[in-house]
Amino acid sequence: MNIQKNKRRLGAVAAMTATGLAIFTASSATAGELTETQYILNTFSFLVHGFLVMFMAAGFAMLESGLVRSKNTATICLKNIALYSIAGLTFYIIGYNLMYAGVDGGYMGSFQIWGGDNADALAGNFDGGYAAESDWFFQMVFVATAASIVSGTLAERIKLWPFLAFVVILTAVIYPIQGAWQWGGGWLSEAGFSDFAGSTLVHSVGGWAALTGALILGARKGKYTSGGIHPLPGANLPLATLGTFILWLGWFGFNGGSQLALASAADAIAISTIYINTNIAAVGGVLAAMVLTQLVYKKVDLSMALNGAIAGLVSITAGPDSPAMGQALLIGAVGGALVVFLVPLLDKFKIDDVVGAIPAHLGAGIWGTLAVPLTNADASFAAQITGVVAIGGFVIVASTIAWLALKFTVGIRVSEEDEMLGLDQAELGMEAYPEFGRGSQSL
Amino acid sequence: MNIQKNKRRLGAVAAMTATGLAIFTASSATAGELTETQYILNTFSFLVHGFLVMFMAAGFAMLESGLVRSKNTATICLKNIALYSIAGLTFYIIGYNLMYAGVDGGYMGSFQIWGGDNADALAGNFDGGYAAESDWFFQMVFVATAASIVSGTLAERIKLWPFLAFVVILTAVIYPIQGAWQWGGGWLSEAGFSDFAGSTLVHSVGGWAALTGALILGARKGKYTSGGIHPLPGANLPLATLGTFILWLGWFGFNGGSQLALASAADAIAISTIYINTNIAAVGGVLAAMVLTQLVYKKVDLSMALNGAIAGLVSITAGPDSPAMGQALLIGAVGGALVVFLVPLLDKFKIDDVVGAIPAHLGAGIWGTLAVPLTNADASFAAQITGVVAIGGFVIVASTIAWLALKFTVGIRVSEEDEMLGLDQAELGMEAYPEFGRGSQSL
Amino acid sequence: MNIQKNKRRLGAVAAMTATGLAIFTASSATAGELTETQYILNTFSFLVHGFLVMFMAAGFAMLESGLVRSKNTATICLKNIALYSIAGLTFYIIGYNLMYAGVDGGYMGSFQIWGGDNADALAGNFDGGYAAESDWFFQMVFVATAASIVSGTLAERIKLWPFLAFVVILTAVIYPIQGAWQWGGGWLSEAGFSDFAGSTLVHSVGGWAALTGALILGARKGKYTSGGIHPLPGANLPLATLGTFILWLGWFGFNGGSQLALASAADAIAISTIYINTNIAAVGGVLAAMVLTQLVYKKVDLSMALNGAIAGLVSITAGPDSPAMGQALLIGAVGGALVVFLVPLLDKFKIDDVVGAIPAHLGAGIWGTLAVPLTNADASFAAQITGVVAIGGFVIVASTIAWLALKFTVGIRVSEEDEMLGLDQAELGMEAYPEFGRGSQSL
Repeated sequence: MNIQKNKRRLGAVAAMTATGLAIFTASSATAGELTETQYILNTFSFLVHGFLVMFMAAGFAMLESGLVRSKNTATICLKNIALYSIAGLTFYIIGYNLMYAGVDGGYMGSFQIWGGDNADALAGNFDGGYAAESDWFFQMVFVATAASIVSGTLAERIKLWPFLAFVVILTAVIYPIQGAWQWGGGWLSEAGFSDFAGSTLVHSVGGWAALTGALILGARKGKYTSGGIHPLPGANLPLATLGTFILWLGWFGFNGGSQLALASAADAIAISTIYINTNIAAVGGVLAAMVLTQLVYKKVDLSMALNGAIAGLVSITAGPDSPAMGQALLIGAVGGALVVFLVPLLDKFKIDDVVGAIPAHLGAGIWGTLAVPLTNADASFAAQITGVVAIGGFVIVASTIAWLALKFTVGIRVSEEDEMLGLDQAELGMEAYPEFGRGSQSL
Repeated sequence: MNIQKNKRRLGAVAAMTATGLAIFTASSATAGELTETQYILNTFSFLVHGFLVMFMAAGFAMLESGLVRSKNTATICLKNIALYSIAGLTFYIIGYNLMYAGVDGGYMGSFQIWGGDNADALAGNFDGGYAAESDWFFQMVFVATAASIVSGTLAERIKLWPFLAFVVILTAVIYPIQGAWQWGGGWLSEAGFSDFAGSTLVHSVGGWAALTGALILGARKGKYTSGGIHPLPGANLPLATLGTFILWLGWFGFNGGSQLALASAADAIAISTIYINTNIAAVGGVLAAMVLTQLVYKKVDLSMALNGAIAGLVSITAGPDSPAMGQALLIGAVGGALVVFLVPLLDKFKIDDVVGAIPAHLGAGIWGTLAVPLTNADASFAAQITGVVAIGGFVIVASTIAWLALKFTVGIRVSEEDEMLGLDQAELGMEAYPEFGRGSQSL
Repeated sequence: MNIQKNKRRLGAVAAMTATGLAIFTASSATAGELTETQYILNTFSFLVHGFLVMFMAAGFAMLESGLVRSKNTATICLKNIALYSIAGLTFYIIGYNLMYAGVDGGYMGSFQIWGGDNADALAGNFDGGYAAESDWFFQMVFVATAASIVSGTLAERIKLWPFLAFVVILTAVIYPIQGAWQWGGGWLSEAGFSDFAGSTLVHSVGGWAALTGALILGARKGKYTSGGIHPLPGANLPLATLGTFILWLGWFGFNGGSQLALASAADAIAISTIYINTNIAAVGGVLAAMVLTQLVYKKVDLSMALNGAIAGLVSITAGPDSPAMGQALLIGAVGGALVVFLVPLLDKFKIDDVVGAIPAHLGAGIWGTLAVPLTNADASFAAQITGVVAIGGFVIVASTIAWLALKFTVGIRVSEEDEMLGLDQAELGMEAYPEFGRGSQSL
């Protein structure tokens, strides 16, 4: 087991060779010497795949906008653009280096503002592999994704600024530290854990933070009543559908770009394989959720199908490069099935997850991580369980502390009156759809 | 006439030379020997252009969501994500090889699950041209497009599962067989037919399937009454506008990627030419539709302008590489004009096309195919007519059989009560916009 | 000061060297000789970044759809697809060559239809740098952006066809002439003005045209009354949020592609730097607008946050390559702050800007242009002021003439009855949301 293998920030040629790119150096350049063209191609891959992942912020915003009630829609829009902004700021000020700078088998990197250095490349030595800024961009958009997951679960009753304070903690500290363990080359990568693009490191982290938040925050008023579970349907399902399609699109960047290189035939083949496995895992998730909701509920549920797509995508994210296509289909289908069973299970425990993010990101994230050894001989169940438990434990503890600290200082929940009125009027003084029907007077 | 010319799956260097890439081998490598960089660039072109086409699924979903009534909106969203999923599954299990494997001048390929093989490239021989998986990805998203066309026309009265059954037949059998005739190197390509990116192979196929479906399914209740034609306006025109812009964006991938290669200056120039011709054809479609609706109806019609854009795009798709820019503008403008005249013509025959897909995809698809010889000396009207008639005839017959088989077994149309109630409540038990105005009680 | 430096259309190798790409020729090819791979990479950068900018048309359409009232939504959708179409036509017929052909230190290029020439590249000489068509595509989408800015400000009361006539004038004459002064290599570039991707040349041009239009057109009925300022809130804030995210995505193409080359390590590094500076400037804009609206109004305003993002993006556009990341953050934050103060200032002067485009594009455009010398030693305040004043003066005069000519011939404002009824019913005879709530009867 090579440490390099599980790191996310490649150390130039040495690392590229380590990831199996022998052909690269053999066919295109002498060992230890990347060409300028290779440097450019790797950089461009980070940029193109990075802008796809960036656009996932819009996907989450639309998905969540569609699944909340109209009286809370403007607020969820604001939270989404704010959390993407915060993630971009904190990852610059502290996150990146805490995650990647000098972790060396340990538990975290160093505390310092990020700064790129491309002097070598500008001097004609391209062994750095890619422009430092392109790497930063690609890593940053992943942090934002983790934060996006939390906003959906906790919608419709959490206060704006305390939520954003949690996003600061999550993106500045929690995400980078657990990230350092694996992608930063820390202890977990040495232990052989394998998580290609973040089923655990990104999706379950967001999921655990959402789950602890949901438990501490409590359910929305009127959701769980003595008369049973009262559905509070989302106001705009085409937007939720659009959001899902945008996420699906973005996932080609999320998983494909995580190959971290494009400049060898082996890389290009790997990225292509990742694209089609990512796609068919989502297919599996959609179809499994559709068939199961038809069988169980006698009607197909659109929001389950959408979450099935997301769950399929999350499931394949831990290892999109190794499965055969049929295996990827099944991995995604299990993810989609999980959603159908976990959504009512959460309701049974009165855990109120507004958009179904916990099943899709946490449930499928764990499943996908555990499934890696099924198709990847370099991974082991023991190491996978270690990673799931260690990161899960850390995020649960850290998030709980953060949520409780916020709860007992500034408070995290809006008043009952404000919740009835809707967060848009209460927190922003505006309406998302001021002309449409019942608007904020409804429900 | 070289068979290779009209095939869509290039056979490495031989084919690349055949498509006029002499410069490629002359300037960059010895004949018959692609470099690794060329292999990477071709692969990356498939991936980037492929994700643009994939996103067209979101475009169709939004276009159709915007043009149906609110009581049927969730259902059309579900159909769109389901059909994209089904296309991805069937093209893997049967479609790709039925279309491309060993057609050899004949009528279809072989029945076998797709599997890519990149052993040559991994061994340092890059004459395959690109990663097999990237090619599969790019071809797959085209199948989904054909299926998307059908859902819009038949919206608001077709049953969910029978519709999806038809999608299975269309994507697994009908599309691949006619595709084999041309892009698979079958008899039609030998006959000299020319269809660069699918005015006929994709758009008119979807259009014919939609037309036969519309005839067999019948019009929506209340559309054609003794009192005349009763418009049933779409519920959300900004979503339809968004969908059109997404389709326009995706079309750069659709046509540009169909060059199938990027790794020579000639390819890069061809793709660039395709981009600007594609764009200005859409421009022609929009402006023609706007001016004509102003002249004919004294008011500009937004949905006609949107369909004008699509018709312009469809029109140029058969030959986006050969026209001069002014010619492309005119080709698109004729497509846009066709929409303005075909929409009322369909109504005259009481053919109920909810979103106007038949004029935009079938009408403009035929026009665009027939227009190729106007700017491409290698194409002939005789061969173009042969292709249009042969593929049209095949799809009409095959689709009719499929629709009738479904009609007389499971049934394809919802009950009159369900149609009045709306498919969202009847088939899914949910509402797309539960808080907005009249909602499902309307119309 | 090298003229080449400020030109936007590079003159092959000479220009590439001038922009600091010494390493390019040194490491990859003999001086004055680009390789085919470099030609391909430059071309592909134009195409990829160009399609991102093209998609900004959808962003503006959604932003404006979300911020107008429902009775004017279909019209604003139509205007957006029409103006993008017109820009693509006029830039082909007259704009491109008026801006770029033979300006030579002067005031405008020549009047002739655009036509690309790639004979050199097809003959194996790649010193042209990229396919002519890819350059045309990338330049064209910028013109459309300038026109998009105008439509938002003047929404809800301007007549459709006169507005489109102004778009013709703006895109065919006004934009190209001022563009010739700088990017075409005219007098302003010789004077040392620096505007990397168009804070002034694109955004303030759109802003000035919008401002003169707003002054001549007058405010919407009911906005400024004796009882004070009456807010007329937009009908669909999630669409406005989506539009902002799409614009943010598109801006990576807008600024990144403006490097005009990808084919050297120095270019790849520059583009990567531009991506992260562009992103963090938007972050600064969002956070500044949020914090300031919280402090000033005691509530965070979503539309201010969205415009803050846009203002941050506009602010960095004049010089996204030179600031350190912290500087880019501050430049964007000042832009976001400007929005918070300029929006009420415009209201004080009863200048009715429906979507806030003047603060975000003109205010931040001027700021961003003046900020360039703060981080770029090659720029001077004197030259920056010269550019802002010269282009501002020209656009104000030319736009005023155009608006007044339209006003006193065909008229530019709808009747009071039509304004109350809404432009959708009055001009298009349709409704954007026919089933939702109060619809066109409202407000």
